[in-house]
Amino acid sequence: MAFLPLLEEVVRSVDGALACSVMGFDGIAVENFQIDAATDLDVQSTLIEYAAVLGQVKNAAQLLKTGAVTEVSINSDQVLTIMRLVTDEYFLVLALSARGNYGKGRYALRITAPRIRDEL
Amino acid sequence: MAFLPLLEEVVRSVDGALACSVMGFDGIAVENFQIDAATDLDVQSTLIEYAAVLGQVKNAAQLLKTGAVTEVSINSDQVLTIMRLVTDEYFLVLALSARGNYGKGRYALRITAPRIRDEL
Repeated sequence: MAFLPLLEEVVRSVDGALACSVMGFDGIAVENFQIDAATDLDVQSTLIEYAAVLGQVKNAAQLLKTGAVTEVSINSDQVLTIMRLVTDEYFLVLALSARGNYGKGRYALRITAPRIRDEL
Repeated sequence: MAFLPLLEEVVRSVDGALACSVMGFDGIAVENFQIDAATDLDVQSTLIEYAAVLGQVKNAAQLLKTGAVTEVSINSDQVLTIMRLVTDEYFLVLALSARGNYGKGRYALRITAPRIRDEL
């Protein structure tokens, strides 16, 4: 379960990235990498709270005919998060500053999710 | 209730924008503007389905200590949506192609939401 290098790679490759985690829908982080500058931001407790929200979205999204909901973002004025499903139990979440590169963040999660899945 | 010019302004100002609507949490669109090229995309039925998801997020977000959740995005591989609360009953939603300008879309909704609120 060598997640940490993958998470660090995501954070290092995306401008404005603050933290990247593998989390369960129970809100427990399996692994987390965050930049030092993000320590004042309480990333962990925020992510745990968002996990509960994402669980609701996942349940609702399963009812969608549109299918193929691959990502959900929850944004405040300061922090953007991008959450991407890895398996039915786990997801990847990337926290970015509001001026971070959202498109690059989406790309990094898209290519990293299958690599995380292989490690689970 | 002169929403339509505001919605058109959002769509015209954001690269890759497909449609912009004022919707209620019941899934009923109050007003919608969409570009002609988006007619093959069934924007309306997608947005109605997303309204149900957003309602769940809104309920869950009220439990968040982090507060200040201002936006939620639900993305598939083809379409990005940005949803921003206008009042307790209504929200603005912008649909973008996957290569659209997400940052500009966020900005356009942020400045348009209070103008819509004034009209409601």
